[in-house]
Amino acid sequence: MSERVPILQIGDVLLVSIQTDLDDQAVLYLQDDLAARVVDSEAHGVVIDITAVEIVDSFVGRMLATIASISRMLDAETVVVGMRPAVAITLVELGLSLGGVRTALTLEKGLRLLERARETSTGDAPASRPW
Amino acid sequence: MSERVPILQIGDVLLVSIQTDLDDQAVLYLQDDLAARVVDSEAHGVVIDITAVEIVDSFVGRMLATIASISRMLDAETVVVGMRPAVAITLVELGLSLGGVRTALTLEKGLRLLERARETSTGDAPASRPW
Repeated sequence: MSERVPILQIGDVLLVSIQTDLDDQAVLYLQDDLAARVVDSEAHGVVIDITAVEIVDSFVGRMLATIASISRMLDAETVVVGMRPAVAITLVELGLSLGGVRTALTLEKGLRLLERARETSTGDAPASRPW
Repeated sequence: MSERVPILQIGDVLLVSIQTDLDDQAVLYLQDDLAARVVDSEAHGVVIDITAVEIVDSFVGRMLATIASISRMLDAETVVVGMRPAVAITLVELGLSLGGVRTALTLEKGLRLLERARETSTGDAPASRPW
Protein backbone atom coordinates (compact mmCIF):
# COMPACT_ATOMS: atom_id res chain seq x y z
CA MET A 1 0.00 0.00 0.00
CA SER A 2 1.24 3.45 -0.89
CA GLU A 3 2.20 5.93 1.74
CA ARG A 4 0.07 9.07 2.01
CA VAL A 5 1.96 12.33 2.01
CA PRO A 6 0.94 14.42 5.05
CA ILE A 7 -0.56 17.85 4.40
CA LEU A 8 0.16 20.45 7.07
CA GLN A 9 -1.63 23.75 7.54
CA ILE A 10 0.07 27.05 8.44
CA GLY A 11 -2.51 29.81 8.75
CA ASP A 12 -4.45 29.59 5.51
CA VAL A 13 -1.65 27.97 3.57
CA LEU A 14 -1.30 24.21 3.06
CA LEU A 15 2.18 22.75 3.17
CA VAL A 16 3.22 19.54 1.47
CA SER A 17 6.75 18.31 1.98
CA ILE A 18 7.91 15.67 -0.50
CA GLN A 19 10.36 13.48 1.44
CA THR A 20 10.48 10.24 -0.50
CA ASP A 21 10.10 9.03 -4.03
CA LEU A 22 6.40 8.82 -4.74
CA ASP A 23 4.86 6.08 -6.81
CA ASP A 24 1.84 6.62 -9.08
CA GLN A 25 -0.67 5.70 -6.40
CA ALA A 26 0.90 8.03 -3.83
CA VAL A 27 0.73 10.92 -6.33
CA LEU A 28 -2.96 10.23 -7.02
CA TYR A 29 -3.69 10.13 -3.28
CA LEU A 30 -1.81 13.39 -2.82
CA GLN A 31 -3.78 15.11 -5.61
CA ASP A 32 -7.10 13.90 -4.12
CA ASP A 33 -6.20 14.73 -0.53
CA LEU A 34 -4.85 18.14 -1.42
CA ALA A 35 -7.85 19.11 -3.55
CA ALA A 36 -10.18 18.10 -0.69
CA ARG A 37 -8.12 20.00 1.87
CA VAL A 38 -7.96 23.17 -0.25
CA VAL A 39 -11.75 23.22 -0.37
CA ASP A 40 -12.31 22.22 3.30
CA SER A 41 -9.79 24.68 4.69
CA GLU A 42 -10.51 27.46 2.18
CA ALA A 43 -6.74 27.75 1.85
CA HIS A 44 -5.51 30.50 -0.44
CA GLY A 45 -2.12 28.96 -1.05
CA VAL A 46 -0.26 25.67 -1.34
CA VAL A 47 3.47 25.32 -0.72
CA ILE A 48 5.21 22.21 -2.05
CA ASP A 49 8.61 21.77 -0.42
CA ILE A 50 10.98 19.74 -2.61
CA THR A 51 14.16 20.44 -0.62
CA ALA A 52 14.61 16.70 -0.06
CA VAL A 53 14.21 15.90 -3.75
CA GLU A 54 17.63 15.41 -5.29
CA ILE A 55 16.68 13.91 -8.60
CA VAL A 56 13.61 14.81 -10.55
CA ASP A 57 12.14 13.15 -13.61
CA SER A 58 9.29 13.97 -15.94
CA PHE A 59 6.87 12.10 -13.64
CA VAL A 60 7.62 14.38 -10.69
CA GLY A 61 7.71 17.44 -12.95
CA ARG A 62 4.24 16.65 -14.29
CA MET A 63 2.98 16.02 -10.76
CA LEU A 64 4.06 19.51 -9.68
CA ALA A 65 2.39 21.08 -12.71
CA THR A 66 -0.81 19.06 -12.17
CA ILE A 67 -1.06 19.92 -8.47
CA ALA A 68 -0.58 23.60 -9.33
CA SER A 69 -3.34 23.44 -11.97
CA ILE A 70 -5.81 21.70 -9.64
CA SER A 71 -5.10 24.18 -6.83
CA ARG A 72 -5.50 27.14 -9.16
CA MET A 73 -8.93 25.86 -10.19
CA LEU A 74 -9.84 25.79 -6.52
CA ASP A 75 -8.62 29.37 -6.06
CA ALA A 76 -5.32 28.59 -4.32
CA GLU A 77 -1.93 29.59 -5.64
CA THR A 78 0.95 27.10 -5.59
CA VAL A 79 4.57 27.88 -4.80
CA VAL A 80 7.30 25.27 -5.13
CA VAL A 81 10.13 25.85 -2.65
CA GLY A 82 13.57 24.36 -2.08
CA MET A 83 14.39 23.50 -5.66
CA ARG A 84 17.99 22.40 -6.04
CA PRO A 85 20.05 23.79 -8.94
CA ALA A 86 20.36 20.35 -10.54
CA VAL A 87 16.60 19.86 -10.35
CA ALA A 88 15.98 23.18 -12.11
CA ILE A 89 18.41 22.23 -14.87
CA THR A 90 16.80 18.81 -15.33
CA LEU A 91 13.29 20.25 -15.51
CA VAL A 92 14.36 22.73 -18.19
CA GLU A 93 16.15 19.97 -20.11
CA LEU A 94 12.97 17.89 -19.95
CA GLY A 95 11.08 20.82 -21.42
CA LEU A 96 9.03 21.15 -18.22
CA SER A 97 9.51 24.78 -17.33
CA LEU A 98 6.50 24.69 -14.96
CA GLY A 99 4.88 27.63 -16.68
CA GLY A 100 2.14 28.45 -14.20
CA VAL A 101 4.05 27.48 -11.06
CA ARG A 102 5.79 30.07 -8.91
CA THR A 103 8.99 29.17 -7.15
CA ALA A 104 10.85 30.50 -4.14
CA LEU A 105 14.17 29.38 -2.73
CA THR A 106 13.05 28.79 0.85
CA LEU A 107 9.85 27.96 2.71
CA GLU A 108 9.88 31.36 4.41
CA LYS A 109 10.17 33.19 1.07
CA GLY A 110 7.42 31.02 -0.36
CA LEU A 111 5.07 31.92 2.49
CA ARG A 112 5.86 35.62 2.07
CA LEU A 113 5.21 35.39 -1.65
CA LEU A 114 1.75 33.89 -1.00
CA GLU A 115 1.03 36.50 1.63
CA ARG A 116 1.87 39.31 -0.78
CA ALA A 117 -0.08 37.71 -3.61
CA ARG A 118 -3.09 37.56 -1.30
CA GLU A 119 -2.74 41.18 -0.18
CA THR A 120 -2.56 42.25 -3.81
CA SER A 121 -5.55 40.19 -4.87
CA THR A 122 -7.85 40.84 -1.91
CA GLY A 123 -6.59 44.09 -0.45
CA ASP A 124 -6.70 42.34 2.94
CA ALA A 125 -3.83 42.16 5.32
CA PRO A 126 -3.80 38.79 7.07
CA ALA A 127 -4.88 38.93 10.72
CA SER A 128 -1.61 37.52 11.91
CA ARG A 129 1.51 35.90 10.57
CA PRO A 130 1.83 32.47 12.10
CA TRP A 131 5.43 32.14 10.91
CA MET B 1 39.70 21.99 -21.34
CA SER B 2 36.95 24.53 -21.57
CA GLU B 3 37.22 27.91 -19.99
CA ARG B 4 34.76 28.72 -17.22
CA VAL B 5 32.88 31.96 -17.60
CA PRO B 6 33.25 34.09 -14.44
CA ILE B 7 30.09 35.05 -12.56
CA LEU B 8 30.23 38.39 -10.76
CA GLN B 9 27.86 39.60 -8.07
CA ILE B 10 26.50 43.16 -7.80
CA GLY B 11 24.22 43.46 -4.80
CA ASP B 12 21.77 40.62 -5.23
CA VAL B 13 22.19 40.42 -8.98
CA LEU B 14 24.56 38.02 -10.72
CA LEU B 15 26.40 39.26 -13.78
CA VAL B 16 27.73 37.07 -16.56
CA SER B 17 29.69 38.69 -19.33
CA ILE B 18 30.12 36.58 -22.46
CA GLN B 19 33.50 37.58 -23.91
CA THR B 20 34.47 34.69 -26.15
CA ASP B 21 32.85 32.03 -28.25
CA LEU B 22 31.72 29.30 -25.90
CA ASP B 23 31.88 25.63 -26.78
CA ASP B 24 29.30 23.08 -25.61
CA GLN B 25 31.22 22.19 -22.48
CA ALA B 26 31.69 25.82 -21.47
CA VAL B 27 27.94 26.40 -21.82
CA LEU B 28 27.16 23.38 -19.63
CA TYR B 29 29.62 24.62 -17.00
CA LEU B 30 28.02 28.05 -17.12
CA GLN B 31 24.52 26.63 -16.65
CA ASP B 32 25.65 24.52 -13.67
CA ASP B 33 27.71 27.29 -12.07
CA LEU B 34 25.00 29.87 -12.51
CA ALA B 35 22.24 27.64 -11.09
CA ALA B 36 24.40 26.90 -8.04
CA ARG B 37 25.25 30.58 -7.55
CA VAL B 38 21.62 31.71 -7.84
CA VAL B 39 20.71 29.36 -5.00
CA ASP B 40 23.77 30.10 -2.84
CA SER B 41 23.54 33.86 -3.17
CA GLU B 42 19.71 34.00 -3.22
CA ALA B 43 20.09 36.37 -6.15
CA HIS B 44 16.86 37.78 -7.50
CA GLY B 45 18.25 38.61 -10.91
CA VAL B 46 20.75 37.53 -13.54
CA VAL B 47 22.22 39.88 -16.14
CA ILE B 48 23.88 38.34 -19.19
CA ASP B 49 26.02 40.89 -20.97
CA ILE B 50 26.49 40.03 -24.66
CA THR B 51 28.03 43.37 -25.72
CA ALA B 52 31.14 41.52 -26.91
CA VAL B 53 29.13 39.03 -28.97
CA GLU B 54 29.20 40.04 -32.61
CA ILE B 55 27.82 36.94 -34.21
CA VAL B 56 25.18 34.76 -32.68
CA ASP B 57 23.93 31.37 -33.82
CA SER B 58 21.13 29.09 -32.70
CA PHE B 59 23.46 27.48 -30.16
CA VAL B 60 24.03 30.76 -28.35
CA GLY B 61 20.39 31.72 -28.73
CA ARG B 62 19.25 28.48 -27.11
CA MET B 63 21.82 28.94 -24.34
CA LEU B 64 20.32 32.33 -23.46
CA ALA B 65 16.80 30.89 -23.41
CA THR B 66 17.88 27.88 -21.29
CA ILE B 67 19.73 30.02 -18.75
CA ALA B 68 16.66 32.24 -18.43
CA SER B 69 14.38 29.22 -17.86
CA ILE B 70 16.67 27.69 -15.23
CA SER B 71 17.00 31.03 -13.41
CA ARG B 72 13.22 31.55 -13.46
CA MET B 73 12.71 28.16 -11.81
CA LEU B 74 15.09 29.29 -9.09
CA ASP B 75 13.13 32.52 -8.66
CA ALA B 76 15.56 34.87 -10.40
CA GLU B 77 14.72 36.97 -13.44
CA THR B 78 17.11 37.17 -16.39
CA VAL B 79 17.89 40.26 -18.45
CA VAL B 80 20.10 40.12 -21.55
CA VAL B 81 21.96 43.39 -22.10
CA GLY B 82 24.13 44.83 -24.85
CA MET B 83 22.53 43.10 -27.81
CA ARG B 84 23.82 44.44 -31.11
CA PRO B 85 21.35 45.21 -33.89
CA ALA B 86 22.80 42.45 -36.09
CA VAL B 87 22.46 39.93 -33.27
CA ALA B 88 18.81 40.86 -32.75
CA ILE B 89 18.15 40.44 -36.47
CA THR B 90 19.87 37.04 -36.55
CA LEU B 91 17.97 35.78 -33.50
CA VAL B 92 14.64 36.71 -35.06
CA GLU B 93 15.66 35.14 -38.38
CA LEU B 94 16.56 31.95 -36.51
CA GLY B 95 13.08 31.95 -35.00
CA LEU B 96 14.56 32.47 -31.54
CA SER B 97 12.71 35.49 -30.29
CA LEU B 98 13.71 34.68 -26.67
CA GLY B 99 10.11 34.76 -25.47
CA GLY B 100 10.62 34.73 -21.73
CA VAL B 101 13.83 36.73 -21.70
CA ARG B 102 13.84 40.44 -20.97
CA THR B 103 16.37 42.66 -22.66
CA ALA B 104 17.85 46.08 -21.97
CA LEU B 105 20.26 48.09 -24.08
CA THR B 106 22.86 48.69 -21.41
CA LEU B 107 24.03 47.08 -18.19
CA GLU B 108 22.80 50.03 -16.14
CA LYS B 109 19.33 49.85 -17.68
CA GLY B 110 19.28 46.09 -17.10
CA LEU B 111 20.09 46.54 -13.41
CA ARG B 112 17.39 49.18 -13.04
CA LEU B 113 14.88 46.92 -14.73
CA LEU B 114 15.65 44.13 -12.25
CA GLU B 115 15.43 46.55 -9.36
CA ARG B 116 12.00 47.73 -10.45
CA ALA B 117 10.81 44.16 -11.03
CA ARG B 118 11.88 43.30 -7.51
CA GLU B 119 10.15 46.30 -5.94
CA THR B 120 6.95 45.37 -7.74
CA SER B 121 7.09 41.73 -6.75
CA THR B 122 8.19 42.11 -3.15
CA GLY B 123 7.10 45.59 -2.14
CA ASP B 124 10.61 45.96 -0.73
CA ALA B 125 12.96 48.73 -1.64
CA PRO B 126 16.52 47.45 -1.76
CA ALA B 127 18.66 48.68 1.10
CA SER B 128 21.09 50.40 -1.23
CA ARG B 129 22.00 50.59 -4.88
CA PRO B 130 25.48 49.30 -5.33
CA TRP B 131 25.72 50.76 -8.85
